[in-house]
Amino acid sequence: MPKHFGDPPDVAVGTGFKNRQALRDAEVHAPLMAGISGTQAEGADSIVVSGGYLDDADYGDVIIYTGHGGNDPQTKRQIADQDVAAHGNAGLITSQLQGLPVRVIRGAGGHSQHAPAVGFRYDGLYRVTDHWTRTGAHGFRLVQFRLERFEDQPEVPLDQLDLEGQPVALRKAVIQRQIRSTATVWKVKALHDDGCQVCGERLVVNGGTYSEGAHIRALGRPHLGPDTLDNILCLCPNHHVRLDYGGLYLSDDLTVIDADSGAVIGPLRTHPMHRISLSHIRYHRGLWTT
Amino acid sequence: MPKHFGDPPDVAVGTGFKNRQALRDAEVHAPLMAGISGTQAEGADSIVVSGGYLDDADYGDVIIYTGHGGNDPQTKRQIADQDVAAHGNAGLITSQLQGLPVRVIRGAGGHSQHAPAVGFRYDGLYRVTDHWTRTGAHGFRLVQFRLERFEDQPEVPLDQLDLEGQPVALRKAVIQRQIRSTATVWKVKALHDDGCQVCGERLVVNGGTYSEGAHIRALGRPHLGPDTLDNILCLCPNHHVRLDYGGLYLSDDLTVIDADSGAVIGPLRTHPMHRISLSHIRYHRGLWTT
Repeated sequence: MPKHFGDPPDVAVGTGFKNRQALRDAEVHAPLMAGISGTQAEGADSIVVSGGYLDDADYGDVIIYTGHGGNDPQTKRQIADQDVAAHGNAGLITSQLQGLPVRVIRGAGGHSQHAPAVGFRYDGLYRVTDHWTRTGAHGFRLVQFRLERFEDQPEVPLDQLDLEGQPVALRKAVIQRQIRSTATVWKVKALHDDGCQVCGERLVVNGGTYSEGAHIRALGRPHLGPDTLDNILCLCPNHHVRLDYGGLYLSDDLTVIDADSGAVIGPLRTHPMHRISLSHIRYHRGLWTT
Repeated sequence: MPKHFGDPPDVAVGTGFKNRQALRDAEVHAPLMAGISGTQAEGADSIVVSGGYLDDADYGDVIIYTGHGGNDPQTKRQIADQDVAAHGNAGLITSQLQGLPVRVIRGAGGHSQHAPAVGFRYDGLYRVTDHWTRTGAHGFRLVQFRLERFEDQPEVPLDQLDLEGQPVALRKAVIQRQIRSTATVWKVKALHDDGCQVCGERLVVNGGTYSEGAHIRALGRPHLGPDTLDNILCLCPNHHVRLDYGGLYLSDDLTVIDADSGAVIGPLRTHPMHRISLSHIRYHRGLWTT
């Protein structure tokens, strides 16, 4: 059966469920065991956030979610690296790249203040805005995801609704990607006159040129990069996507490297007034290399 | 004096002003006559929406705003074409390309239900999300802009506040550009396997490939393009920006043309299952050519 993306047919945001079988019957989350319902080809349509990973963090509208794999089924301890190609993880990456909506179900237990008291609760649609890898406290590599809740959805009620709750209309369009700008971004783009620091391209459009300011260490949780000149590159949209989504990284001598093949793309184009921070470059590189 | 972008220092959204001098004194809108405060180099920091142009439309959170130039100072009648390079128009285009916030002031008069009863009112920050040209009923070419209100701002109150109103915090980051996706967009991207229909590029990122679905005739007001297969192209982000911002257009035989030079970029890459609508191509081309 092909996956259904978006709100379940007759389930309102905030609806409570006794167990995983009830989630499956209501078409909220199909797998009875796996936390991620997804494949690389289709994307992931739903996840269960159960606070099972110490490395997870739940801020309500933003969730830092650890992928699956590498833990011992008996002890739950991490005993191996996680793999971006494992099917649930690969599914969430496809959802990020394609901008697909992911249903989020929170389970009781764990340490999140947003978790329901008992059972499971459907908490609405999120999009995957970022993923990266990092070494956990146990020494193994984890795949992590940032999910952000779509706006214009009902608040999650404090009291759980039952299945009689009003269904939520399906969203027609979802935001796949947002380009943010700040006063510091404007300065960087002006210094480079909208020229991409990777390829030199200056996109000519009606009435001017266009570029994007790319934060090397991303703003917001969990990266908490600063909005400073030394953390921003002036890039064309294509190289901005590749920087953000792990398609390229920088070496200490400011060479741009293709993350997939390890091949040299070329030297970063620099400007004497625009120093780049080595520590932010290393932070970014650490997300995509070991 | 360099322009100040963002909320005025001590003026709350909804604050009323007697006249243009009062707007100037409060650093809300500096020019006493011009509707647009802006230059190509700096961008536009504020506009006054007065309903002076029949071609304007005011939907509250979305404003269709006609640029300046070409009308007779005495009779206000349009007697010549407007020019994208005229300084206020060029300023609003820079604000679009750079993602700068524009203060919107509404004036009394005209036919908008959102206009104040008397004087002027500061209605908060908008971003310029689109611009195009078209021939008005009078036969002259107009430059038009779409402005969208930033979210997370106070509602415009029905009663005007006075200058004692609470100041609004300056936003740190603004959204420069949003990539939206729909179920139909996913189909088009799948048909082309994320390959750009202009250049063939397939952006490789960590865990997959990335492309964007670009509506030829844009969704939303005033274009009201449909979310159908024949109105969507699969593009790399660079060519998506150039399509949306008037850097390229298509001829009837599906040749991609550079809008600035008129040079041929190449044939559009097509797929037998993906028919493109000639009428949407012509609509888009009409925005950028006469």
